Amino acid sequence: MAEHDLAFVEGGITASFGFMASGVSAGIKKSGRKDIALIVAEKRCPAAAVFTTSSMAAPPVVVSRESISDGLLRAIIVNAGNANACTGESGMADARAMAEATATALGCDAADVLVASTGVIGVPMPMELVFAGIDEAAEALDLVAGEDAAEAILTTDTFVKTTGVAFELDGITYTVGGMAKGSGMIQPNMATMLAFVTTDAPLTSASCDAALRAAVARTFNRITVDSDTSTNDMCVLMASGSAGGDLIDPNDQGFAVVSSAIEHVCGELARMVVRDGEGATKLIAITVTGAESESDAEAVAFAIANSPLVKTAIFGADANWGRVAMAIGKSPARVDATRVRITFAGILTCEGGTAVPFSEEDAAVALAESDVEIAVDLGLGSGEATVWTCDLSYEYVRINGEYRS
Amino acid sequence: MAEHDLAFVEGGITASFGFMASGVSAGIKKSGRKDIALIVAEKRCPAAAVFTTSSMAAPPVVVSRESISDGLLRAIIVNAGNANACTGESGMADARAMAEATATALGCDAADVLVASTGVIGVPMPMELVFAGIDEAAEALDLVAGEDAAEAILTTDTFVKTTGVAFELDGITYTVGGMAKGSGMIQPNMATMLAFVTTDAPLTSASCDAALRAAVARTFNRITVDSDTSTNDMCVLMASGSAGGDLIDPNDQGFAVVSSAIEHVCGELARMVVRDGEGATKLIAITVTGAESESDAEAVAFAIANSPLVKTAIFGADANWGRVAMAIGKSPARVDATRVRITFAGILTCEGGTAVPFSEEDAAVALAESDVEIAVDLGLGSGEATVWTCDLSYEYVRINGEYRS
Repeated sequence: MAEHDLAFVEGGITASFGFMASGVSAGIKKSGRKDIALIVAEKRCPAAAVFTTSSMAAPPVVVSRESISDGLLRAIIVNAGNANACTGESGMADARAMAEATATALGCDAADVLVASTGVIGVPMPMELVFAGIDEAAEALDLVAGEDAAEAILTTDTFVKTTGVAFELDGITYTVGGMAKGSGMIQPNMATMLAFVTTDAPLTSASCDAALRAAVARTFNRITVDSDTSTNDMCVLMASGSAGGDLIDPNDQGFAVVSSAIEHVCGELARMVVRDGEGATKLIAITVTGAESESDAEAVAFAIANSPLVKTAIFGADANWGRVAMAIGKSPARVDATRVRITFAGILTCEGGTAVPFSEEDAAVALAESDVEIAVDLGLGSGEATVWTCDLSYEYVRINGEYRS
Repeated sequence: MAEHDLAFVEGGITASFGFMASGVSAGIKKSGRKDIALIVAEKRCPAAAVFTTSSMAAPPVVVSRESISDGLLRAIIVNAGNANACTGESGMADARAMAEATATALGCDAADVLVASTGVIGVPMPMELVFAGIDEAAEALDLVAGEDAAEAILTTDTFVKTTGVAFELDGITYTVGGMAKGSGMIQPNMATMLAFVTTDAPLTSASCDAALRAAVARTFNRITVDSDTSTNDMCVLMASGSAGGDLIDPNDQGFAVVSSAIEHVCGELARMVVRDGEGATKLIAITVTGAESESDAEAVAFAIANSPLVKTAIFGADANWGRVAMAIGKSPARVDATRVRITFAGILTCEGGTAVPFSEEDAAVALAESDVEIAVDLGLGSGEATVWTCDLSYEYVRINGEYRS
């Protein structure tokens, strides 16, 4: 492959050299499915993380913010089935105890263990099960267990989300691998649901942080399933450096190459989350161009992406582009109605803010596809952004009318 | 009745002296249902209106903003079945032609006619049908046709929305009557869907404006069905003065009494809109207290009201209060997680940000009611606000997956 080109690799987070993982069933999920995942680097290594902006952030988020503050991590312990959120002081103690139990099992410092939890809110953690699960997960650690770990972090997800790429830089082959979970309560803000990315490239902590923030801003922070932001969102990057080569700082030439590979992996995972959005039947990409600024473009794209009327129309395969016009109008972005151009599933429906006749038959064919693109040009400037969402179906209502009970 | 007490009266907008109305079928709706409403005061009178904040505001909104600019109106012409939105220059000409045709039929000035349209976006108005309908509506004008007019402005609504109150002030009995339509695309911002309020109190234009803005801020602007803001929203108040008495200016003693009657009528209509929200099975009142400011309280209440996860949980009669905690966390308001108190359907579920054990049986009983209250105390200050919304059901998806086709 050509220098810098990205080639898909299997294995998820263990595709990168220098990482082991495991996924085990500890009995936290009533279903008996895997519910504890462990990711361990061969040694303490540079890392970065971004977290939910929720003011109701859960105890594991609070503890993990402390762990990552020195830019170094050895391990990540994750449980699904219980979010350890709205659990007060005992929840804080439980999150710390998870880091300590993991550190004991691995023989490392608890301050180098990041803790993530996902699942139901407001229920105390079943700590006996969790402790036993952590020990089991430590024993099960394996160089090729990326898929097991990815399975153990799922909640309402219907499929495992892993991806990875390999690329060459200065004659060395590096790998970036990742996994994510998420299906509902998805409008990440700063981070997302849970996503873990590993690389064997020799990034410094500063490079990890810069690359992760840039990637998340254009991937996980540009998706929405239901406009709801979780109390437990986080996205973590660990860089083992195990593939060798000189340390890569944000100012080094190689940084852009590794950074772009990380953004690619985050983008793939983010789109998987949306495609697996609760009840989703279609992946919808909304691209806004011609805005006065990138943030205006993003605001318009999110207004469309979060409109239940747009989402139900696409579920019903109805080219009801008037709802896109409505959503543009309600966004806080500057809009000149006489310049708005809307393309719906590849079909021009509105030009200069005015309806354009189109073939309903062509629209029906285009809307039968599993991927739908909405393109809006505001005709004002050069700001642009793409946001991904899914449609709103009967199944979404069923899943969320029944989830907790 | 005691001075100032409000007594319910029937008749909607024609409950007030000095108004005639009509509702006729012009063939704009394919169903053949009534689709043109006309409201006429016996003479040009003080009035006020608030309109959608949408930057994609429809031609009738643009024309009506001009009509109301002098604070005086004689008539309101409304059509349902076509929103005359995203219709460009010809849509502007059509909206003006509607005002002119109405003025001709009534023998008044077109500048004193307000135009409102609601229905599908992006379709040219069938003007021949509209003109014939306006003539028919003018001929059908009647002193007791408030219900006919209310029927003619409906779209996906399942019931007619009218209300009215009478009260005494300085020995004179005054009446405020109103009607509204709206069921989807409801998060009014500034005004709402369509709502028309009449009074025979002798308000000045300034009083109309002050009373309407105050009422709308706490009623129509505090409801949401689906977080979507229409291109055609408006709320209009006309004051015939036909009940007699001295002119009432905002500084006069009687202003607060009339203003409170207007807010009462707007509140009743707003809650009817939510109760008739597309697919709604429950009316949900969300009250936030203890916020640092009223706007913070409103932001938290709207974050909860617009959360599809909260709305589906209530549809499923599931006391999943963790989703309320999530929604509080995602709002932009200042929140101290350790002070949050959540009461869900009358049951305390969270205190000091921490889960409180509760009886699922009690919750199931409370959630079987058609009205559900969620109360949140942020424990920070004295800001408070109530927002009304409805649940999110299968029927919402069905209605909006099929609406246009």
